[in-house]
Amino acid sequence: MTFRHRHLLGIEPLHQEDIRTILDLSERYVDLNRQSKKHLDVLSGLTQINMFFENSTRTQASFELAGKRLGADVMNMAMQASSLKKGETLIDTALTLNAMHPDLLVVRHPHSGAVNLLADKVNCAVLNAGDGRHEHPTQALLDALTIRRAKGRLHRLSIAICGDIAHSRVARSNLLLLGKMENRVRLIGPPTLMPSRIEEFGVEVFDDMREGLRDVDVVMMLRLQKERMDGGFIPSEREYYHRFGLDEEKLAHAKPDAIVMHPGPMNRGVEIDGTLADDINRSVIQEQVEMGVAVRMAAMDLLSRHGREGEDQA
Amino acid sequence: MTFRHRHLLGIEPLHQEDIRTILDLSERYVDLNRQSKKHLDVLSGLTQINMFFENSTRTQASFELAGKRLGADVMNMAMQASSLKKGETLIDTALTLNAMHPDLLVVRHPHSGAVNLLADKVNCAVLNAGDGRHEHPTQALLDALTIRRAKGRLHRLSIAICGDIAHSRVARSNLLLLGKMENRVRLIGPPTLMPSRIEEFGVEVFDDMREGLRDVDVVMMLRLQKERMDGGFIPSEREYYHRFGLDEEKLAHAKPDAIVMHPGPMNRGVEIDGTLADDINRSVIQEQVEMGVAVRMAAMDLLSRHGREGEDQA
Amino acid sequence: MTFRHRHLLGIEPLHQEDIRTILDLSERYVDLNRQSKKHLDVLSGLTQINMFFENSTRTQASFELAGKRLGADVMNMAMQASSLKKGETLIDTALTLNAMHPDLLVVRHPHSGAVNLLADKVNCAVLNAGDGRHEHPTQALLDALTIRRAKGRLHRLSIAICGDIAHSRVARSNLLLLGKMENRVRLIGPPTLMPSRIEEFGVEVFDDMREGLRDVDVVMMLRLQKERMDGGFIPSEREYYHRFGLDEEKLAHAKPDAIVMHPGPMNRGVEIDGTLADDINRSVIQEQVEMGVAVRMAAMDLLSRHGREGEDQA
Repeated sequence: MTFRHRHLLGIEPLHQEDIRTILDLSERYVDLNRQSKKHLDVLSGLTQINMFFENSTRTQASFELAGKRLGADVMNMAMQASSLKKGETLIDTALTLNAMHPDLLVVRHPHSGAVNLLADKVNCAVLNAGDGRHEHPTQALLDALTIRRAKGRLHRLSIAICGDIAHSRVARSNLLLLGKMENRVRLIGPPTLMPSRIEEFGVEVFDDMREGLRDVDVVMMLRLQKERMDGGFIPSEREYYHRFGLDEEKLAHAKPDAIVMHPGPMNRGVEIDGTLADDINRSVIQEQVEMGVAVRMAAMDLLSRHGREGEDQA
Repeated sequence: MTFRHRHLLGIEPLHQEDIRTILDLSERYVDLNRQSKKHLDVLSGLTQINMFFENSTRTQASFELAGKRLGADVMNMAMQASSLKKGETLIDTALTLNAMHPDLLVVRHPHSGAVNLLADKVNCAVLNAGDGRHEHPTQALLDALTIRRAKGRLHRLSIAICGDIAHSRVARSNLLLLGKMENRVRLIGPPTLMPSRIEEFGVEVFDDMREGLRDVDVVMMLRLQKERMDGGFIPSEREYYHRFGLDEEKLAHAKPDAIVMHPGPMNRGVEIDGTLADDINRSVIQEQVEMGVAVRMAAMDLLSRHGREGEDQA
Repeated sequence: MTFRHRHLLGIEPLHQEDIRTILDLSERYVDLNRQSKKHLDVLSGLTQINMFFENSTRTQASFELAGKRLGADVMNMAMQASSLKKGETLIDTALTLNAMHPDLLVVRHPHSGAVNLLADKVNCAVLNAGDGRHEHPTQALLDALTIRRAKGRLHRLSIAICGDIAHSRVARSNLLLLGKMENRVRLIGPPTLMPSRIEEFGVEVFDDMREGLRDVDVVMMLRLQKERMDGGFIPSEREYYHRFGLDEEKLAHAKPDAIVMHPGPMNRGVEIDGTLADDINRSVIQEQVEMGVAVRMAAMDLLSRHGREGEDQA
């Protein structure tokens, strides 16, 4: 299993082969996590530091469990309460942590590109846990694993991503990954929530859910940031749900075996009907969470093998 | 040692035999914790998640140390900062965590019944670390262990519970446990802080400390929630201390070897005299804390043995 | 290797031999931390509790990593959110934790002397991670290790400490340590930021940087507390930087191979020029952080050997 990247900063630098390598290893960790004894020593002796400059209970928990189950010494840094308040720069913080010799640095940051900047300054492997509107690679990988397990393949599928595309790093990383794997991706949402240069991605764009969902294999809903409501982007929760919220009726336009995905946390009754979200025949939302831990275990395992000898830059 | 419960949600579903099983195993962990090397691998490979929807430094610390000393991978979730703020429901949070395959879920929640609700939705063992005014089973068990060690038995004792009974899950779980073990329990406090249907418990009620404490073996003080002061429940700290605060003079009405308990944190000079609280001949307050870690180790050990094969519902 | 102290409360009670013992052992941990596998079982089975009554991301992280890499069960207590808010006293908090049988208690507190007070009440080894304006012994030790590695010795050096001396526990602990090791220490700063009874320490005092830095081997800058600005102590950031901020021009008065130190977090452009801080030929600021983890590993290792049998009080 070869994986010649030093960091996991985004989907962009990955090749098909890299993605398959991560997903294949993840399958093993899915099995491990389902066992009663779910601890290995793959990362034992290594130090993992989670630096979250934005709160994210689930993503941080997923990375934390992934590291602990693989035997790493894991430390969470509450960056809100940190020296940044005392005027220290992001770079100083990174250099300080770097001097403590971490092996794996997991970073979430509100600004696009901040994680790449930081990766240039440190000696260890950096994993992007979401930066601004840029990338959220482990989310795209866990989505890919979920799709591959449900559909038996990860290519030549018709996949709709629905909602606030413009502000979503989840959408961006998924678009990149699904494109690399040769799927047909459609974007559905109000024009005010579409990115401006959408042509670059070579996708079809719809502002009608029924039309956009026609015959798709996968329906990937995005979380609606409520602060966009009534701010010029979209009129109201009720209006949004009426036009873009996923329910049984709209889903009926997709393939009969289409699966429903959501990165969480959900706004039930806003972007998705609560009953549909809980329908285990259609919804794979809980499985996405499960895959998340496995994918993060695989990513940290692979990056730690490359370790400090690495020459390639991701 | 048989313990056929899947969860520890309260004292209510436990039988005498269950209580004895937990306390007997706790004794072994008391011994372990007093040693220099205090780590076993009883829970190694298992994942423990602490979800505290209410702050509780001591109880969380006690569960955290218990799990770490038994070798579990322990993760604390700061639920205040969590997705709940983003509008996610308690059930969604529970399902999300469940998908990460924890083995032990320790939950504190401000609403009575919330922990039971959550236990219905997950596949792992759930431990109630306090829910609203409902139950706080590990507190009652640690109190029971403290009493049994001090008095040599846990039956046919005369035990007074004093203070804000109405709002106290500690009082409620203790009442249940001490009743099951065939002790005589008295409740002492201002009528405004007595539960309405107190007859159900078959206890004697007093609003005079001297009378209520007469010849008791154990005096169990409760923490006074200061927000009840001057809110119609009780007039002032000074007045409360005068009538219901435990001091040497009032304690003189109890048996000469009566022990003094408090679940902490104490309001010195409000519900208890500070000097008395520190008197190691009467007060077992520090020992209660020590027993807390041991009882939680025992409870998690027993629940993990039952594990996922369990059929009984606690 | 003998180290006959029960606690590490300050530099004051340490002898030259103690300091050398800690630094020598630290060297081994510097080597360990630079390896890929950086985990030993020196503290396995032991419980370390970090109680930070003041936020300090770096110092807490350094102690946490130190303990985890040596195999301790490490628990952080967020003391802001704790029972202290509910009116519990510091002593009650200490007694409560003590009853949980920690082996190592790491404490930071805003009041001078609070850590010593606490050490009197507990049975375990206490490490002072900074108390008020009193002491911050591990900072002085990590500074000493950094100096010894850079200069090849820790005696007969000329060392300038610059900035807000009066309010700095870092300055105080460094003064004590550097004095014990027979160095010549100079203090440089505005008279308003000098301690009142400075003669006690037998040092030279300067309020001119160029004069004070003349021919020194080591320039130790202190962090400027911005809240002292415009409060009678010092006029403004610009004025302060002009007179006391370290830049190439002022540094030219020191020895050509003088090293530049700062305990972090830095205010770039206030007490130090940013480019100089990053100049790896002069600045050892990142190395100080690295030494910090090693020194804390050594200190906890030594204190845990003494363990509970100890009779000497530090």
